[in-house]
Amino acid sequence: MERDFASWMGSVQARMEDVLTRLLPGASVAPARLHAAMRYATLEGGKRVRPLLCFAAGEASGAMPERLEIAAAAVEMIHAYSLAHDDLPCMDNDILRRGKPTVHVEFDEATALLVGDALQALAFHLLAEHRLADAPATQLEMVATLALAAGSRGMAGGQSIDLEATGKMLAVPELEAMHIRKTGALIRAAVVLGAGCGGPLAAAARAGLDRYAKCVGLAFQVVDDVLDAEASTATLGKTAGKDSKQGKPTFVSALGAAHAREFAEDLRQDALAALAPLGERARRLRELADFIVLRKF
Amino acid sequence: MERDFASWMGSVQARMEDVLTRLLPGASVAPARLHAAMRYATLEGGKRVRPLLCFAAGEASGAMPERLEIAAAAVEMIHAYSLAHDDLPCMDNDILRRGKPTVHVEFDEATALLVGDALQALAFHLLAEHRLADAPATQLEMVATLALAAGSRGMAGGQSIDLEATGKMLAVPELEAMHIRKTGALIRAAVVLGAGCGGPLAAAARAGLDRYAKCVGLAFQVVDDVLDAEASTATLGKTAGKDSKQGKPTFVSALGAAHAREFAEDLRQDALAALAPLGERARRLRELADFIVLRKF
Repeated sequence: MERDFASWMGSVQARMEDVLTRLLPGASVAPARLHAAMRYATLEGGKRVRPLLCFAAGEASGAMPERLEIAAAAVEMIHAYSLAHDDLPCMDNDILRRGKPTVHVEFDEATALLVGDALQALAFHLLAEHRLADAPATQLEMVATLALAAGSRGMAGGQSIDLEATGKMLAVPELEAMHIRKTGALIRAAVVLGAGCGGPLAAAARAGLDRYAKCVGLAFQVVDDVLDAEASTATLGKTAGKDSKQGKPTFVSALGAAHAREFAEDLRQDALAALAPLGERARRLRELADFIVLRKF
Repeated sequence: MERDFASWMGSVQARMEDVLTRLLPGASVAPARLHAAMRYATLEGGKRVRPLLCFAAGEASGAMPERLEIAAAAVEMIHAYSLAHDDLPCMDNDILRRGKPTVHVEFDEATALLVGDALQALAFHLLAEHRLADAPATQLEMVATLALAAGSRGMAGGQSIDLEATGKMLAVPELEAMHIRKTGALIRAAVVLGAGCGGPLAAAARAGLDRYAKCVGLAFQVVDDVLDAEASTATLGKTAGKDSKQGKPTFVSALGAAHAREFAEDLRQDALAALAPLGERARRLRELADFIVLRKF
C-alpha cells in the first residue's frame, strides 16, 4: 500500500511536470523574459499537493486523466502565481523558495509581478479552452469555483487578513478563518475541480468531499506551521522559522507545537471520516490525507 | 448626433458606476481593507472606454444590456487591476491616477498588489457566474478570450515588452507590436465580449469588428502618447510627460507629434471602413472611434 501510493504520487508528479512544461509558453516565445520567468516560477517545484488532490478526487468520480491534468495545471498555476507574489519585498520579502532563489531575486520585481498576473490569466485560459466536463455549463461552474477560490473571498483575501494579522495574537477560530481562505480555498478548489472532471456524484458524496477538502486544507496549514517552527531551511527548501521572525500568528504560537500536532491529527480523522460515502473510490484521497498530515517536509 | 452620443455615453458610464458598485464586495465585508481598496481602484474612475466599446459592440449584435453590463464590468476590472499594478514602485512608480493618489499611496504596496490579484479573479468569476450567452459553450469562449487578452500573450506580455523597451528607441512596427498587446488586446476583448453577448454575427461582420477593434486599440494608444506629451497633469488626471521622463519609447518619440496625430487619424479611418458590413447597427462604434481619436484628455 505504502509503496503503491508512493509510486502513484511519483507518476502524478512526473505527469504534472510534463503537462506544465507543455502548457506554459516556451522560454523563447516573445516576451521571452516573461515566459522564462513563468516557467521558472512553476516548473521543478514543490510536492504538487494540489494536483495530487485533483487527481485523487478525479479518481473518485471516474474522471479521465487527460481532463484532470488540465484542471490540476490550472490550480497549480494559481498556486505558483501566489508564491511569486507572496515572496515579493512588499509581502513576505523572501529570497528562497523550493531551494532556489525566488522569482524576483532570479529575475526582478517587476517581472515577478507580471509572472503572477500572467499565470493567473493562463490558469483561467486553460480551464476555458480545454474540454473538461461533458456539459459546458458544468465547466463554467468550474471556472467560477477557481475564481472564487483565488479571489478576495478566497486566497487573496486570506493574504490580506494575514498582512493585517502580523504582529498580533490570533485565537484559533480567527487563525482558522484566515487559513480557510489563504490555503484552504485553493485546496478545496483542487478537489472540486478534480471531481468535476468526472461523472456526477451523489449529494452525500459531494458533501463528504467538500468536508474532506476543508479538513485537509486546514490540516495542511497546521502541519506547515509546525514544520516551519521545527524543521530546518535545508529540509524545507524555503526559509524556516520565518513566521515567528515576522511576528506572524501561527497554530504553533496559538496552541504550542504538541497541541498543533494533535489538532492536525484530529483534522485528519475528520477528513477520513468524511470520505465514508465514497467507499473504495476514495482510496487515494485517504492516502493523501495521511501524507499531508504525517509528512516531515 | 453629437449631443445624442454624449447622452448615450453618460448613461453607459453612470450604469457602469452602479454595476461596479454592486458587483464589488462591500467595503465593510471582510477582509474590509482589501475590499475598500478594490473599490477605490475601480470606482469613480476614468472614461470607461472599454465598457463603452463593449456596449457599442453589443448594440451591433442586439445584446441585452443586463448581459453587457457584466461583460463590461469584467473587462473594466481587468483594466483597473492593471492600473493598480502598473503604478507600483517596481513598475511605473506613479503616485497620481485619475486625479487621486494611486492605490499603493492611498493604502500600501501589499494591498495594491492584492487588489490587482483579486480584481483579476473577480473578473473571471463574473464571466463564469452570470449568464451572458445563450450557449454555455459560447460563454466559455468569452472566458478564454478575456484570459488570452489579459495574459502573457496579451496585456501582461505587453507590459513585459514595455519594461524591456524602456531607455530604447523602438521603430513603429515594434511599438505597434508592444501596444497591440499592452492596451490593444483588452480593447479587442471588450469588443468581442460585447458582441458575444448578443446574437451570432455573419463572418464578414465579425471580421470587420475585429479589424475595427485592432485599429481603435492602437489609435487609443497613439492618442494617449500625444496627450501624454502635450497635455498637463491637471487635464489628464494622471502624471503627464512621464513617458519621456522614464525614457519610454512612444509614438511621439518615434514619429513626432504631428505624424503621430496623422497616424491616429489613419487608424480612425481604417476602423470606420472596417465597420461597413455592420451597417447602421455600428453607429455607436463609429461614434466611439471618433471620440477616442479626437478626445483632448
